[in-house]
This record gives sequence, structure tokens and C-alpha cells, in this order.
Amino acid sequence: MTFAIGIDVGGTNSKLAVVTRDHRIQSQRSIPTQPHRGPDAVIDDLARAAHGLLQGPITGVGLASPGPLDLRRGTITRAANLPGWLDVPIRDKLAEKLGLSVVLENDANAAAYGEYVAGGGVGCEHLVVLTLGTGVGSGVIVNGRILHGHFDNAGELGHMIVVVDGLPCPCGQRGCLERYSSADAIVRRACHAAGGNAEAPRRENAETGDSEPDGERNAPGAGATAPSPSPRSAADVALAAADGNATCAQVWDEACKYLAVACVNIQHAYNPQRILLAGGLSLAGAALLDPVRRHLRAQGWSLHDDLPEVALATCGSDAGVIGAAALAFESQK
Amino acid sequence: MTFAIGIDVGGTNSKLAVVTRDHRIQSQRSIPTQPHRGPDAVIDDLARAAHGLLQGPITGVGLASPGPLDLRRGTITRAANLPGWLDVPIRDKLAEKLGLSVVLENDANAAAYGEYVAGGGVGCEHLVVLTLGTGVGSGVIVNGRILHGHFDNAGELGHMIVVVDGLPCPCGQRGCLERYSSADAIVRRACHAAGGNAEAPRRENAETGDSEPDGERNAPGAGATAPSPSPRSAADVALAAADGNATCAQVWDEACKYLAVACVNIQHAYNPQRILLAGGLSLAGAALLDPVRRHLRAQGWSLHDDLPEVALATCGSDAGVIGAAALAFESQK
Repeated sequence: MTFAIGIDVGGTNSKLAVVTRDHRIQSQRSIPTQPHRGPDAVIDDLARAAHGLLQGPITGVGLASPGPLDLRRGTITRAANLPGWLDVPIRDKLAEKLGLSVVLENDANAAAYGEYVAGGGVGCEHLVVLTLGTGVGSGVIVNGRILHGHFDNAGELGHMIVVVDGLPCPCGQRGCLERYSSADAIVRRACHAAGGNAEAPRRENAETGDSEPDGERNAPGAGATAPSPSPRSAADVALAAADGNATCAQVWDEACKYLAVACVNIQHAYNPQRILLAGGLSLAGAALLDPVRRHLRAQGWSLHDDLPEVALATCGSDAGVIGAAALAFESQK
Repeated sequence: MTFAIGIDVGGTNSKLAVVTRDHRIQSQRSIPTQPHRGPDAVIDDLARAAHGLLQGPITGVGLASPGPLDLRRGTITRAANLPGWLDVPIRDKLAEKLGLSVVLENDANAAAYGEYVAGGGVGCEHLVVLTLGTGVGSGVIVNGRILHGHFDNAGELGHMIVVVDGLPCPCGQRGCLERYSSADAIVRRACHAAGGNAEAPRRENAETGDSEPDGERNAPGAGATAPSPSPRSAADVALAAADGNATCAQVWDEACKYLAVACVNIQHAYNPQRILLAGGLSLAGAALLDPVRRHLRAQGWSLHDDLPEVALATCGSDAGVIGAAALAFESQK
């Protein structure tokens, strides 16, 4: 029996797992990433942790990393979660330390691949996974393979514009999906709309340099019932919405509506069999899925009977290591 | 020297061409399609016209047809431009009549492939072509191959929602790109905004069953300078805009702005090297390209230096037959 090691590098913690060819995790561990210590120290830590997991024959290593990456060169070009890391040849450095071949992949893509081989996307040769957390990440599977595009930046669906001239985004655009439908956006918009928490709008403006009225233009329900106390998580917003808080209900419903619009556009872009919702927000389960499906039906597409199924991802936080390990096996074929 | 025959079936006319392996058209002709005579009569006409073109060894036939198609079965499922045609096995019927193998492809995809092999997309393994005419058609090339998706409906970018709760579209959705940026939409919106032509808004409402105020909600510049006389083509709108007509200028500029938003979303979906604008509207040249590029820059994407180049298609109305013939050669490999 051979194994692969899947590694999922995060801004705070990195996860490592020994995975079988049929996608079962044999053992795993998590270590702090500490990116401020610089790439070499972090790569040393990852190699040491991987060594500690070695047992039996290892066919290779799959490494999921925040991007943007240069997959041909195996480098991290510049990652938002790893400040100061520029053009880091992480693939080859880790391969040298471990004496194993290493496959590098974008973390959202690896997670999508994990769902494809072992989770909610099994059997879907055409699949899109939206990871709803701090931002909105995404991975796209076309004909059973990850879609990369020309500069390895295909499937950046969190920055799909859903509101022309909408809320400013740190990426430079306005009206990106992740400004409305990420877990962070939901909290920020609920606080902002309630007007009870000065921190949230200030944070938005600090990120973008935008003036107050601009941020407010798209905030719903200003003057509506304020949640009390201000929500600290998307789960708080969901709970308050369920309890009848009008502001939270509106913010939550708009997040779901824009997700449905994104699903329509994903359908027309890729015609996938299934769209999976993953990440922290997906823990809301039916409270997320039901309104997204309702808004999707309301969009009314009628030309073909081929709307993709929208469902919840099932691998949870293991998706990245499972997908990365599967890519390591794939690369040996 | 071997040839392939490319056929591009249109609602009004069908075009046939003998094409070399290196994508040069040797001879061509156009015949009326007359879809009301039924599939068998039309397929007979196509076979007869193809026979008339035969010269030297023909390797096969590429057939570009309006969709939706079922590519596995080789059938036209139900085409908007071919009323009454349901589940027509056009691929096998034509193959039988001609004694040649026939490859079926969606017309917009075939045109995109034509631009990829012989036009404005040569060398772009990742390419998107938007055909701006009556509607907005599109074809997507990923890794040098046409993207089909699960039900062969990938790349229906004319129905990307660019305005949530926007103008109603006959497809059942609201705010589709083609309601703002097709040649027809530009004329309709210019007439509507001018208020001088009762025909245009009535047509919009007849298509959708929608009440007057709904159609008007998104019409720009109501009450602004009316074009005189009402524009009959998108070229008229472009000319009037250049002449300083405020209403036409606004309609034209909004069409370009929504095209730019579509290009942003296309970038994030596929990360192509190039996006080509084709179809009747693209004849406007710089009057179209310059404002689209300006609006694209204004969207401000800053995370990577990888915005796709937006350019004009170069094959004109030959793109479909060239692409179809190239697919016939491909299928023989």
C-alpha cells in the first residue's frame, strides 16, 4: 500500500495528512505556520512535520498553498495570507528537503479537487466549489481536471462583479461577490446596517480609502431593527435572522441572493453538474442552502432544463489535504 | 491535398465552404435555409449544396448549428432560430446523405474555434469570443479545446446576469448581458429612452409579458435629447452618439460598460489570454473597443497583472465555416 502526503498551508495553521490512494486519511497533524519567520523557516517546519508523519512508502507530496502561484515554476508569487513572501520556490525547496516529488496547487483548487475525488462532488466531471469564509474562494473542475487558465488564475469567482458600481473591494474592483456573500461580509454588513458598531464600516473604509457614504450606499435596512448586541460571526447573523431581526434577515437574504446570481453565472460559464458551498458559512446548512436554492429558482432560467444542483460540500477542512494528496497520486501516473 | 467542408447553418441563410487543413477557404456558397420546410428538406438542400462544392479528397464535414444541441447524439434539441425543429438527428442524416463523417458543433463555439485556429485568437490556448448581434453568443476555448460543460451548454455568456433584477429577458432571467450589450438591445434601448418610437418598448413587453414601468426602470436618459429620427441599427446609435446625441451616447456607453463588466467576470472565470469581440456590433471598431477597454481599466482589478487583452475578431462571417472545417480535420486525428 502506498500513501501520499497532503499539505494545506494556511495563514495561521498548516495541516498535513497521510492519505491513501482511495482518499482515506491515515494520520494527520496541524502546526502553526508563523509566516513572519520567513519562507525558509516555514518550509523547514513543514518538512519536519511531514517527516514525522512518514510511514510506509510515500509516493509523493501534494502542497496546497494560498495564491497567486506560478504553477510552472512552482513558486508562490505573492500571497495575501503570507505577508512579505515574494516569488518563493516552495515546491522545489520542500522536494529537496523531503527527497520526494512535490506537486503545488492553489489551496481553493486543491479543496475543490478533494470534494471531487472524495466529497460532495464525486462523479461530477464538471464541478464548481465556492468556499465561503473570510473571502470567497473557488475551484473549478472541467472534464475531471482543475481549470487553471492562462496565468493559473481561472476560477477567482469571489471577485465576480455581482453589483456594478457596488461596494468597494480591496482587489480594486467594486461589487465583488465576496463583498456580499462571504462570512466576513455578512458580519460587516449586519453591523454596518445596524449602525451600532463603528468598527465595521471603519474597517471597510480603511481597506479601500473610500469615504463613508460610498460604503453605505449599498448597505440594506439602515434604520431597521438593530441586532443587539452587534453580531460577531455569520452564525450570529443567521441566528438573529431566524429570531426575526429584520436587519440580519435582510443581510442574510441578500448574501443568499447574490450567491444565487453567482450560481446562475457559473451555470452559464461552465455548465457544471453541481455547485458545492463550502467553508465556514456552509456550516449554516439548510439556513444557507434553502434560500440560495429559492433565489436560484426565482432567477427563472428557462431555455434548458440543466440548472446545476446546489449542495453542501462534505469534506470540511480535510478537503485541501485530500485533494492535494490525490494530485500527488495523479502526477505519478 | 485534402479538404474539409465547413457548414454554418443560420436561421435565414446557411453557408458552406471547402477549407484546407491550414484554414484557407477554397470555395464557398450560401443557400437560403428555409427552416419552415422542415428538417428533412433543409438537410437535403445542405447535402446538395455540399455535393456541388466537392472537389478532390474531402476528409469530412464540420457542421455548425444553432443550439441547444446534444453533441453525443448529434441532434438539434430545440433551436430558437429553427422553429418547430425538435430532436433532429442532423449529424447522422447529413453523414448518410453525403457518405462522409460529420462533426456537429454549436455555431458560437465553431466561430470561436475559427478565430482560435485562423483569426484574432491564434496562439491563445485560453480564449473567449463574444459574438454581439441579435443576442450575445459566445464560445470558450480552454487549453486549446472548446469548453462544453456537462450538458454542452457551457459558455452561454449572453445570459450572464450583469444587473440583478434588471431588464427582463425572454430566457426567463432578468438583467442578462444581452439585454444591454447586443446590437438589438442597443437599438431598443435608444428608441425606448428617446420615447419617440412606441414600437421598441412594446416589442420588449410583448416578449416578456412585463408591464411598462418595469421595462423603463433601467432605461437611461429618459427625457434626454431624443435622436431624430429613431435609430434603426446599432450603427445609427453609434453615429448619433458620435454626433453628440446624449441619449444615444449614454446607451452606447452603458452597453460598453456592461461588456467590460462581463470581461472582468470572464477573466475571473477562465483567465483567458484574450477576449475577442465579434458579430455585427464589432464592425464599429474603435468606437466599441476603446470605451470597453476604458471601462475595463476603470474596474480596477489589482491583485494580478493578468487582465486579458480585449480585441476585435478578424474572421468576420467566415469564422463558423473555418472553425467547423477545422473540427472536421481534428476529429480525423
